[in-house]
Amino acid sequence: MRARVFVTPRKGILDPQGRAVEGALTSLGISGVANLRVGRYVTLEIDAPSHAAAEATVKRICEQLLANPNIEDFRFEVDAG
Amino acid sequence: MRARVFVTPRKGILDPQGRAVEGALTSLGISGVANLRVGRYVTLEIDAPSHAAAEATVKRICEQLLANPNIEDFRFEVDAG
Repeated sequence: MRARVFVTPRKGILDPQGRAVEGALTSLGISGVANLRVGRYVTLEIDAPSHAAAEATVKRICEQLLANPNIEDFRFEVDAG
Repeated sequence: MRARVFVTPRKGILDPQGRAVEGALTSLGISGVANLRVGRYVTLEIDAPSHAAAEATVKRICEQLLANPNIEDFRFEVDAG
């Protein structure tokens, strides 16, 4: 099964990468952009006996490896296939 | 309008972050995961006169700032609202 994970800086937490990109936009002459935040996008394939088992494993990977629980949130999608 | 950008390592390009995560999975006792790849997930709000104008700006931001055209692909979604 294919899965996609979205890790995002938690609301209210400073996002230095996002601030850097916003600063660079000004140099490019691009205006009208706000609240730009940079997170991670992880794709994977997972071999599991059921959709529920795949979801449980992906959740565990997020909690123990991909997301920093102090400053990041995550969500994920596991394909039905 | 809200937009979401997905930047991914191009197929065939080595993804050291993905390999590192896969290695760590073994230490956690998690098996059955393959082709794990780590990209970036960028969210932003964009003030533009039309949906087409917003899409054009987001495309430009991807090309000129967010994605390395040598080794990364990108795709994006702009909400209708």
